[in-house]
Amino acid sequence: MIDIASLHTILSFTTLAGLVGLGAVFLLLFFINNITVNHKGAASIASAIADGAMTFLREEYKIITIMAIIIGAILGFIFNSIFATAAFGLGAVSSMFTGFVGMRAATMANVRTTMQAKNRGEHAAFMMAFFGGGVMGFAVASFGLLCLSYLFFMFANHEHFVVILTCFSLGASLVAFFARIGGGIYTKSADVGADLVGKVEAGIPEDDPRNPAVIADNVGDCVGDTAGMGADIYESYVGALVSTIILAYSTGYNHINYITLPLMLAALGLLSSCIGLISNLALKSEPAAMLRNATYIAILAFLASAYSYMNWLSMDIYLFFTIILGCLAGVIIGLITEYYTGSKPVQNVAASSESGAATNIIYGLSVGMESTVLPVFILSGIVLASYQLGGLYGVSLAAVAMLATVGITMTVDAYGPIADNAGGISEMAGFGPEVRSITDKLDALGNTTAAIGKGFAIGSALLTALAMLSAYCQQAGISTLNVLDPFIMTGMFVGATVPFLISSLTMRSVSDAALKMVREVRRQFKEIPGLMAGEALPDYKQCVAIATQASLYEMILPGIITVGLPVIVRFAFGKYALGGLLIGSTVSGVVLALMMANAGGVWDNAKKYIEAGNLGGKGSQTHKAAVIGDTVGDPFKDTSGPALNILIKLMSVVSLLLVLI
Amino acid sequence: MIDIASLHTILSFTTLAGLVGLGAVFLLLFFINNITVNHKGAASIASAIADGAMTFLREEYKIITIMAIIIGAILGFIFNSIFATAAFGLGAVSSMFTGFVGMRAATMANVRTTMQAKNRGEHAAFMMAFFGGGVMGFAVASFGLLCLSYLFFMFANHEHFVVILTCFSLGASLVAFFARIGGGIYTKSADVGADLVGKVEAGIPEDDPRNPAVIADNVGDCVGDTAGMGADIYESYVGALVSTIILAYSTGYNHINYITLPLMLAALGLLSSCIGLISNLALKSEPAAMLRNATYIAILAFLASAYSYMNWLSMDIYLFFTIILGCLAGVIIGLITEYYTGSKPVQNVAASSESGAATNIIYGLSVGMESTVLPVFILSGIVLASYQLGGLYGVSLAAVAMLATVGITMTVDAYGPIADNAGGISEMAGFGPEVRSITDKLDALGNTTAAIGKGFAIGSALLTALAMLSAYCQQAGISTLNVLDPFIMTGMFVGATVPFLISSLTMRSVSDAALKMVREVRRQFKEIPGLMAGEALPDYKQCVAIATQASLYEMILPGIITVGLPVIVRFAFGKYALGGLLIGSTVSGVVLALMMANAGGVWDNAKKYIEAGNLGGKGSQTHKAAVIGDTVGDPFKDTSGPALNILIKLMSVVSLLLVLI
Repeated sequence: MIDIASLHTILSFTTLAGLVGLGAVFLLLFFINNITVNHKGAASIASAIADGAMTFLREEYKIITIMAIIIGAILGFIFNSIFATAAFGLGAVSSMFTGFVGMRAATMANVRTTMQAKNRGEHAAFMMAFFGGGVMGFAVASFGLLCLSYLFFMFANHEHFVVILTCFSLGASLVAFFARIGGGIYTKSADVGADLVGKVEAGIPEDDPRNPAVIADNVGDCVGDTAGMGADIYESYVGALVSTIILAYSTGYNHINYITLPLMLAALGLLSSCIGLISNLALKSEPAAMLRNATYIAILAFLASAYSYMNWLSMDIYLFFTIILGCLAGVIIGLITEYYTGSKPVQNVAASSESGAATNIIYGLSVGMESTVLPVFILSGIVLASYQLGGLYGVSLAAVAMLATVGITMTVDAYGPIADNAGGISEMAGFGPEVRSITDKLDALGNTTAAIGKGFAIGSALLTALAMLSAYCQQAGISTLNVLDPFIMTGMFVGATVPFLISSLTMRSVSDAALKMVREVRRQFKEIPGLMAGEALPDYKQCVAIATQASLYEMILPGIITVGLPVIVRFAFGKYALGGLLIGSTVSGVVLALMMANAGGVWDNAKKYIEAGNLGGKGSQTHKAAVIGDTVGDPFKDTSGPALNILIKLMSVVSLLLVLI
Repeated sequence: MIDIASLHTILSFTTLAGLVGLGAVFLLLFFINNITVNHKGAASIASAIADGAMTFLREEYKIITIMAIIIGAILGFIFNSIFATAAFGLGAVSSMFTGFVGMRAATMANVRTTMQAKNRGEHAAFMMAFFGGGVMGFAVASFGLLCLSYLFFMFANHEHFVVILTCFSLGASLVAFFARIGGGIYTKSADVGADLVGKVEAGIPEDDPRNPAVIADNVGDCVGDTAGMGADIYESYVGALVSTIILAYSTGYNHINYITLPLMLAALGLLSSCIGLISNLALKSEPAAMLRNATYIAILAFLASAYSYMNWLSMDIYLFFTIILGCLAGVIIGLITEYYTGSKPVQNVAASSESGAATNIIYGLSVGMESTVLPVFILSGIVLASYQLGGLYGVSLAAVAMLATVGITMTVDAYGPIADNAGGISEMAGFGPEVRSITDKLDALGNTTAAIGKGFAIGSALLTALAMLSAYCQQAGISTLNVLDPFIMTGMFVGATVPFLISSLTMRSVSDAALKMVREVRRQFKEIPGLMAGEALPDYKQCVAIATQASLYEMILPGIITVGLPVIVRFAFGKYALGGLLIGSTVSGVVLALMMANAGGVWDNAKKYIEAGNLGGKGSQTHKAAVIGDTVGDPFKDTSGPALNILIKLMSVVSLLLVLI
């Protein structure tokens, strides 16, 4: 039993921190909304993007809601508890709402970034994109913290508390999986379709208003890279917190201070993120430095406050070291990602394009494969060390620490697509090269700093998945998962194929949808008179409709497999085989996700390196080869790879629920 | 203690079977040599290919010998036994000798296949290529059986018998790893280099004598697809036998009949392969049917004789079912491979090439990823069932059964590159379209039936790796490998990255070597006057030298990593962490190998499907896109993918030795 009075003191603080975060969201929205868009062309393009994005989100949420209602009803029936259903619903709705708010902000901030670039110059434009990203970052952190504080407040001593928390986490995971896959397919089919016909065949520039898929492409950046990623990180955040709380109960850390420590860390991290944000307003330096410093300042503030708190309550100080390790791991993996998707590997991939697309692809895959080694070494080291320091609870706490400053790391992540969009709007509105050069610079910056964000996303996905898996084993009463047992080994091998299967399905979906898009764009180029001369407008809506339809339909099967497989294995082969399945999918999922993310990144940057004038520059044969690599990398880094991060956690949380029945 | 009298009876039989197999080798060589090559042009091309191949093999074997001497000396020192060194040497030398004999036969049979196609027509040409492949197939089976019978004869009751067997197996594995990687890099750098400049840039046909890399390309088929594959299968064969024998001792099947059962099965399989071969001579039907029937007849004869033997000795008849399962698994996985690299997936990949190389690559990767699921399901089912029937010994026996008929399955495999070479020689010697159409048909046939061979190779690699892993755990006294233990889990995650790292290195080697080749071919086209007009000969030797050098240098690092990592993990983190490492590398290695093999196959066949006149045919944009996919697939299916099959076994056998110290 948890002491209610102490709990309420703690919850007052975490709720307050959540409200402060919410305040930051409103303040940022106010700043953004304060800028007026006084250019008719830009405004109409922006509203086309916003409309497309909202249409997609509405359709996507419809499908997700239907599935959520079915699953929620099943949960309520199985656990014979309306609270299970309600918690699941809360997880799903809060995730969707986070995605909605973040995307709304992004579609407002994109055009205002362009306007600021035109009217006030680089710094003002940068701040606008940064604010837009900030809405998503702080929404993720504060919604997550508030929801969990509320669940603690209502159910801390309820007999089904663990079930309720897990259902909440499942709700967030499910939405994240669909949002990632749906948004990922959308954004990449539009992107690939626009590039293949526009850039490669017709030879018109990126974001040229004559390209029928250009609006769909920009919508894609919003629904995939912003809404999808927001739901993804929200899911990690919630998952890490929930699994740590559950582990606290089962690993002997069942004093209230330890049970609520994850929440407190999240609260401290959110406040520290606010400090990072404010410091960015105060210290005006180069954009790149600002993005980086905001992250570092937030992490330092977080560590300092976490230490003070734990010291004040005389908590096990070894656990503080796992918190340091978690923060360190995120930064180090980010730096490794930065190396592999920048500097030498990029130049090598660019050079390999000189002998054509085939060697570019081979080399890029090779870099992606190599890039899996160091992050896994680092993460393994962190797991080992955290385990020595605090057992499974310690490992799980490292994941919480990595995600505690999500307010600011997510801001940096969400900044990228806004800057990207701003460039598109500037091009389509015909703002000329000066404005475009500012937005291009901001966009390039986003690509580099996104590496750190990716480091946190992948690192936390692995640690959270391990925490979930540990929670599963604890709750299932499994203390030994002997892979020499043929059932467990079989489960493991089958599990290892799941990430490959899901990647296969999602990549094919992108390829199929892109093919439809290519045919439509080709048709419009041929059939609309005066389109290429700029005398007639293309039918943007048709392309938006194609991307919407294709992506929504295609996200269903991967979802069914991911949720259904653990259920089948649980009941046909038992809980040990299910444990094997989880281990297998986690191992192969993590490695495959790293490979896909980094191969995609290095292809993208190799293309940009050539476009910057190296090795023949734009339009050369080398450039054409690099464009093909970049196109292959698109679904790698923005659809299939990120989906795997969620996959491994979603399977674990479903399994956890299965043993709680 | 093994009863010597009974042992000698058994060994007399297995040795006899080995000698029968050896007789088949000589007979086939005699048949091949019997055909005279009465065409000067063809003879000179053939001797250029043979010389190039022999030069490469000599250089390769030099490097391998140096490394083998070092490792052999270390083994002798560690185990304080000259026999350990000698057994290791026997494994290495017999593997090299197998590769040498098989390749010699292939370089004799290729030109004779062309001559038969010219002088005697399709059936005679087919038989010649089939005989050429048969030399390799029967050499693998009979050398393996004879060496192991000899080791039994000499050391069956020696205190170091397990060590001696393991050292023998290590020798074969080490040579196989180097031969696969060296040969694989050679063949693909030459192939990619020849295609990229010749077919794509200069627009001349495949195997055109004006292409400077054309001899290197044909040499590559011999050293990679024949010598490399021979060493690979030899390694599997020996590995499966050795690990089953070791498991017999430690799992309670330690009666002489069970200890020698693997050898007896190999002997029966070899004799059954002879029956398959002879039936092919007797039943003259369509080549495709002959290749298939030879395999099926051999398998049926093998099962019948194995049943009779086991029944006669009243052995545990449940084990016979594991033997059936092993044979079935090979065939089923072969059929799955045939599906994924033929029929619908091929048409889909071809169709995806219509929107360019990028979608072709995405779709091909997607097919490769999906194709991992069913084989792993089947193999997992076989493992589960075999385990129920006969424990770890049963699982291991399934691997032996799968490989017992290696004489004939390897024949079918080795037939392919000979037919491929015959086509090249016909083209270069200017034999005209009639001859070429026969060799093309034989070549296409080889590509289809190779699927069955690949099914056996991958299936047996997994089962053998599991058997080796089990032998490792048994010898290390590990009965439980708990992946929830952080050291084991860490080992597993690190292990999972090893196949990715090795694939990365080997793919990059191909890419680098291909780039050198491309530059050289371009240089020759530019600098040799009259080359394109057919008035001057290119400098073939320079291209051969480039491929030789690049591939030999590049095989060293992967070898050091694969052998060194288990040693480091063993001594730094202990035998449990090493167990985790093996599990991780096996799981990710199997899945990655399946993906690479099948993606490579489907790209290859999609290109051929278009070349057959579909979707625009040769020279269309769609075809160009498909050629890029095929080029990416080359190192997938012929370098990195096959290397992984050996990697997982080599790491296991090294580990096994480490716990025997």
